[in-house]
Amino acid sequence: MIDFEERRDELLEKVEEMTRRKQYKALRDILIELEPADIADLFDDLPEEMLPLLFRLLPKEPAAELFVELEPDVQEMLIRGFSNTELKEVLDELYLDDTVDIVEEMPAGVVKRILKHADPDMRKGINEILKYPEDSAGSLMTTEFVDLKRDMTVEDALKRIRRTGTDKETINVCYVVDPARKLLGVVSLRTVLLAEEDDVIEDIMETHVISVGTLEDKEDVAQTFSKYDLIALPVVDKEDRLVGIITVDDAMDVMEAEATEDIEKMAAMLPTDKPYLKTSVFDTFKSRIPWLLLLMISATFTGQIIARFENALGACAILTAYIPMLMDTGGNCGSQASVTVIRGLSLDEIEFSDLFRVIWKEVRVAVVCGAVLSCANFAKLMLVDKLLFGNPITLPIALVICLTMVVTVFAAKVVGCTLPLLAKKIGFDPAVMASPFITTVVDAISLVIYFRFAALLLGI
Amino acid sequence: MIDFEERRDELLEKVEEMTRRKQYKALRDILIELEPADIADLFDDLPEEMLPLLFRLLPKEPAAELFVELEPDVQEMLIRGFSNTELKEVLDELYLDDTVDIVEEMPAGVVKRILKHADPDMRKGINEILKYPEDSAGSLMTTEFVDLKRDMTVEDALKRIRRTGTDKETINVCYVVDPARKLLGVVSLRTVLLAEEDDVIEDIMETHVISVGTLEDKEDVAQTFSKYDLIALPVVDKEDRLVGIITVDDAMDVMEAEATEDIEKMAAMLPTDKPYLKTSVFDTFKSRIPWLLLLMISATFTGQIIARFENALGACAILTAYIPMLMDTGGNCGSQASVTVIRGLSLDEIEFSDLFRVIWKEVRVAVVCGAVLSCANFAKLMLVDKLLFGNPITLPIALVICLTMVVTVFAAKVVGCTLPLLAKKIGFDPAVMASPFITTVVDAISLVIYFRFAALLLGI
Repeated sequence: MIDFEERRDELLEKVEEMTRRKQYKALRDILIELEPADIADLFDDLPEEMLPLLFRLLPKEPAAELFVELEPDVQEMLIRGFSNTELKEVLDELYLDDTVDIVEEMPAGVVKRILKHADPDMRKGINEILKYPEDSAGSLMTTEFVDLKRDMTVEDALKRIRRTGTDKETINVCYVVDPARKLLGVVSLRTVLLAEEDDVIEDIMETHVISVGTLEDKEDVAQTFSKYDLIALPVVDKEDRLVGIITVDDAMDVMEAEATEDIEKMAAMLPTDKPYLKTSVFDTFKSRIPWLLLLMISATFTGQIIARFENALGACAILTAYIPMLMDTGGNCGSQASVTVIRGLSLDEIEFSDLFRVIWKEVRVAVVCGAVLSCANFAKLMLVDKLLFGNPITLPIALVICLTMVVTVFAAKVVGCTLPLLAKKIGFDPAVMASPFITTVVDAISLVIYFRFAALLLGI
Repeated sequence: MIDFEERRDELLEKVEEMTRRKQYKALRDILIELEPADIADLFDDLPEEMLPLLFRLLPKEPAAELFVELEPDVQEMLIRGFSNTELKEVLDELYLDDTVDIVEEMPAGVVKRILKHADPDMRKGINEILKYPEDSAGSLMTTEFVDLKRDMTVEDALKRIRRTGTDKETINVCYVVDPARKLLGVVSLRTVLLAEEDDVIEDIMETHVISVGTLEDKEDVAQTFSKYDLIALPVVDKEDRLVGIITVDDAMDVMEAEATEDIEKMAAMLPTDKPYLKTSVFDTFKSRIPWLLLLMISATFTGQIIARFENALGACAILTAYIPMLMDTGGNCGSQASVTVIRGLSLDEIEFSDLFRVIWKEVRVAVVCGAVLSCANFAKLMLVDKLLFGNPITLPIALVICLTMVVTVFAAKVVGCTLPLLAKKIGFDPAVMASPFITTVVDAISLVIYFRFAALLLGI
């Protein structure tokens, strides 16, 4: 029943119309039928002045769920309009990690108000989580989880889960800790439920616990979820004490955001965390101009190489016509290799120690690709360009072009696979070593090779 | 405790050494401490002849979990070595959807053997799921889930969950169906557990169920998980009957694979589903050569444009030196715009109906980027290239280059954002409209503009 997409435009119109006509009862009935994520989607395109009214039509719980899904600017606008009681009501319904996400996006004045009206436990939790760096496991976690003691029976455990479970983000996995809060094991609700009432938790818990440290990078956290098929992951401090858990929905968001970030970097952009249509023109400009400027200036090299060989080009002008083709093919080959390696690094499929295996593989691929491309190119040069278009191609000229192509493909593949691995090794982000950067390097290499071959075979 | 990565090399050596020395007892103790995903990781780099022995050291359950994580070629090798009893034992421990994944990768002979030794229920399930197209929700699902009736009390439901839960992939979400198996609602185990014993399921179940059809594309399935923060998603047939469920771990795998596929397509490769180091040189070659050939041949256009304007270049040779810079900048601008739009389309943030909003935004970004790049370029031309390198740059030549830059940036941004949206509209994959393709188009445009400006301002 993912039919929301199809009904979206119709719903938008209907909601706007009904709000104008003040048909609040019917409006409420419509909104209540929708998923919070879908209402948030509608809120994106409804007139801002309608939003506080629509928000107030919803009962407490769905209202809080909707609130979490809204964009930060809408959240801020709503909070500014809330009475203290309303703010408290919404906050009481929120999970801790969602509240922290909201707090992180709000200006100082709003944060103060939120902290003032959050209950003491939540305030403590918020301050706790805000301590951790932005991209760390600590910043992703919630401190609301079910903890059990090792000597509890299954009956005790179920009682505790029933008693404390309502406020917890998940009860599907429970965590067994000792009095010093050291993590001893995990036990899934399923195991508890399928065990006998008088079984002891210690005997049914899993003691090989996969956990992460508070400072672990969130990209690694997402990879851990995916590798071990987890639905929740405990976060421990340096003394192995359990401080929080991360749930799979947050890991999925991280995975999506990290893939977007990698893609943006590969296309020579600084990553932004807002959706495209929400980003201002100036912000988009700011994320794009630095690499454009840098790459434009570094193209000075290729320009100077051509300027230096001006005489050669003068002597055999047709060579100029094949510069774009050689450069583009080199760029494409390089980006194929680099992007493959960058993605492999992101997914932990490739490591620096694989450097020689990777190079050896790319060398062989380059030889086959280079051979096929050159042969195809040779045929095209002699049949299409010479016979059809009448370009002044001689056999030596065709040879210069095709040999350059082989060497360019080779250089592009090797540079393309090596640079990201080296970047990773020295602690740089491999993603910025993608196509645009490698294109610039490969352009220069291929031009130098081109003119060397021309000098050698054409004597110019 | 993600310390596996650090211990990997040491473990590999140890396991190999101990296998050679036949220290099976100690070996078993080491393996049993490891996660199945980590043992699979070790199996990748252990000598093939050791694997059957190591596999047999493990107890039934972890052995089955390990089996699921192995690469298809290792699975096939192991199955070929299994006795019928061993095969049956492994199959009995597997979840249905994992078995189907394995079956899909095996040659016909092995599939026959698997079907012969699977129990009748599983055989039926396998055949059922194999009916669905490869990229559909149906192919991802498992038919092992907990179903409840609407008139059950919480006590009945808990009894049923306890009785049937062992074999189900997840019991965290249960599905309420009518006698015709029509999906009436979902109820989480949490809700069941926190309710009173005599509450009736009908009263506590959620009736607004998010579900997908069996033929829904798996990319949309993954997006649904991420949008609504689900841990399981019911799959229904055309009559709204519940036929299976998809769990979040599978959705995460799809999300990861789809991001990789998009990235590969953006870098002009045909997608492969094997990890880089597992792909043969010939397969890598096959995935890369088609686009390389196509793009090489389409570069004929740019070549012919230059050939046609040979005289202009002869009259003012320095113009040639700036062709790479103009082409690269155009390519980079185009790929920034196209990649942003492609990713937005993948994440459902942008739709075709946003075409004009997107173009209008790119136009404004292009104007600012173009202005800044041209000014920087003008300064560079006059100060660095002319004064420092002594290139014969006159004011009109600098003007030709900078004006071309402005128009190229503009054209690149507009073409870059438009092509993916048009591709989507006509049912093509937007990802193949990424940088390499757009570079070729933009190259041709920028060259024509270059020579037009040269004719206009330099009179050549």
